[in-house]
Amino acid sequence: MEIEAAFGGVLRELRVKAGLSQEELASQSGLHRTYVSLLERGLRTPSLSTVFSLAKPLNIPPHEFVLLVSEKLKS
Amino acid sequence: MEIEAAFGGVLRELRVKAGLSQEELASQSGLHRTYVSLLERGLRTPSLSTVFSLAKPLNIPPHEFVLLVSEKLKS
Repeated sequence: MEIEAAFGGVLRELRVKAGLSQEELASQSGLHRTYVSLLERGLRTPSLSTVFSLAKPLNIPPHEFVLLVSEKLKS
Repeated sequence: MEIEAAFGGVLRELRVKAGLSQEELASQSGLHRTYVSLLERGLRTPSLSTVFSLAKPLNIPPHEFVLLVSEKLKS
């Protein structure tokens, strides 16, 4: 699995778990809804800055977000 | 402190600790030496993929790398 796909999968899981729509997450993280959608589908590589921006409204420390991505990459 | 500066500081610390030159780290992570230099000076935002590429030759799990960045951001 590519890192973009792993990140996208984790992002979607965390967003659904947080009970947020793509629009709500985009708004709360200062990103565009289209960009959130592209990230979830593994079609964009997030910058580290984007990971930090998304982690906050998802209520997860950035390093735990990255740990979940690592685990998904290995699965 | 901006995330780029925090990342750059941690990158330099980890590289020195690993006993690698910028050229050696660049070679082992598949990046250009100039890009490693720009990252260390906080002049570029790394992608998550770049963080994973750098973590391997630095012998640190990607999420621990990110934890160090978070801690430096708070300091």
